[in-house]
Amino acid sequence: MIEKKIIQAIEGAERIALLPHVFADGDALGSSIALALALSKKGKYARVYTEEEIPYTYDFLPGKEYVEAFIDQAEEFDLVLALDTGDLARLGKRIKIFESNSFTINIDHHTTNTEFASINLVKTSAAATGEIIYQLTKRMGISLDERIATCLYVAIATDTGGFRYSNTTSLTHQITADLINNGVDVSRISQLVFETVPYKKVRLMGLAIDNIEITEGGKLAFITVTNEMLKRANASEEDCDGLVNVARNIEGVEVAALIRQRSEDEFKINFRSQNYVDVSVIAHRYSGGGHKKAAGCSMRGSVAQIKEIIKKDIREVL
Amino acid sequence: MIEKKIIQAIEGAERIALLPHVFADGDALGSSIALALALSKKGKYARVYTEEEIPYTYDFLPGKEYVEAFIDQAEEFDLVLALDTGDLARLGKRIKIFESNSFTINIDHHTTNTEFASINLVKTSAAATGEIIYQLTKRMGISLDERIATCLYVAIATDTGGFRYSNTTSLTHQITADLINNGVDVSRISQLVFETVPYKKVRLMGLAIDNIEITEGGKLAFITVTNEMLKRANASEEDCDGLVNVARNIEGVEVAALIRQRSEDEFKINFRSQNYVDVSVIAHRYSGGGHKKAAGCSMRGSVAQIKEIIKKDIREVL
Repeated sequence: MIEKKIIQAIEGAERIALLPHVFADGDALGSSIALALALSKKGKYARVYTEEEIPYTYDFLPGKEYVEAFIDQAEEFDLVLALDTGDLARLGKRIKIFESNSFTINIDHHTTNTEFASINLVKTSAAATGEIIYQLTKRMGISLDERIATCLYVAIATDTGGFRYSNTTSLTHQITADLINNGVDVSRISQLVFETVPYKKVRLMGLAIDNIEITEGGKLAFITVTNEMLKRANASEEDCDGLVNVARNIEGVEVAALIRQRSEDEFKINFRSQNYVDVSVIAHRYSGGGHKKAAGCSMRGSVAQIKEIIKKDIREVL
Repeated sequence: MIEKKIIQAIEGAERIALLPHVFADGDALGSSIALALALSKKGKYARVYTEEEIPYTYDFLPGKEYVEAFIDQAEEFDLVLALDTGDLARLGKRIKIFESNSFTINIDHHTTNTEFASINLVKTSAAATGEIIYQLTKRMGISLDERIATCLYVAIATDTGGFRYSNTTSLTHQITADLINNGVDVSRISQLVFETVPYKKVRLMGLAIDNIEITEGGKLAFITVTNEMLKRANASEEDCDGLVNVARNIEGVEVAALIRQRSEDEFKINFRSQNYVDVSVIAHRYSGGGHKKAAGCSMRGSVAQIKEIIKKDIREVL
């Protein structure tokens, strides 16, 4: 059993480093901090090294005193674990910490995981790495508490889009039931993670909604963000996150395209489809990539020209 | 045991009418249809009578062939159940069906329930009436199937705001785990219930965001909807639903007020607070009402005048 080997390795170690992936999200951070909290309950010395500072959204996570943004020097460790990390490149500059250790562990749920460590626990059926960490701490006989439960809740809730994505299973809810029994403040955490939005992002959304164009009998929706709009809203690149979904979620829309200006005549296009259109085919045509329902590419021209090209491509597949 | 009495009454009846509350929401409809499906599995004749046609959002619910919008005449029944209905007024004109029966059952989770029936099963700890119906069908030995599970999932998911509100318990997730085991298509249902928005509503949101005003050091946010905006967006009253939350969810905002025009100089104000302000106190001052974190009232004047009055009131409590 892989789990048994991992538990043996953890029990034999004193000093343990935990590495979430670059641009750590709720699952990467939540599962790493939860494990650090659990390990310290077992008397271990644990540190989470992140690539960047913790994003504002996750600043409330309990146990963030175990987290350090890596600069160029780390302490010495007996054991290094990568969490929620599909491949070595996703460790960024912290690959230094990973490679300085001869014995490494990789715990993840991504189907694309390259099994890059000494021991690899990759459960692709898990909705979140947080689910795997939950099971591991149970198996290690570490009792949950409010802090660990809250971190695992954030991990699971964010990676399932608030229990809405197709990766959400019966087990996801069973685990969550146990986390709530251990003291998670559901409404407070949900508010912090899902509801709170900076004003600049709301403003940008308002401007972007104003220029939504719906065409092809209501099935294709364009939403555009120019540099001038970013400036007006005092917003930046990251505030465009999720904007394409505003267009995709409009009743009747099958394909949504977010057209985002990069330079004078260069635009990045994010495609989303609702049901049957494979948008990766269109993205590939312009040297982009992605999945059936989420893909992207870059294009040159004016917004009007780009819209005409996309309309023509989409018309063939609607 | 109340449950036992209810099961006996159901077993002794042949023809059963189920009544959700007026303006039936996901919980009222989902739990009523789920029970109708379950009862018909037991060989009963069950009908759900609604006050209005099923809202567009819930049109996909399986088992809607059991549902009929009541006009003025219903069939004869041996037993009548009110579901998710706090008091008799919430039955609207269908009180006729309820009162024509000498033996009635009331199944609900609202703390304000007036226990108006022969047997009253009011579980205020339940996040949704759907939870109570789940337990009742289990107790009756009726096996779940995809249709029943889907209706109960919609009931529970909507009344907990997608498992985000403070009413969400460990039991809520345990029940949901079992519903998913019985075939709920989580991503499809979540998309239909939570994500899909009519274009006119999105347009109205864009226009409303453009006029958001943030004041009092970022703690008070105004969002205004005039009749002219409704007209421009081709939207109506119902499209204002949830708009106040766009303002309340802005980072740092403690109180949000949606100012909605009713006539030339008459406005309806919806207040929401985030943490500590009791907005019902302010609403009461203008003959309105509500709860600590959600309240409303009507005011006369211009938008600018109304904002000045509210600012003054809010300043005292911020």
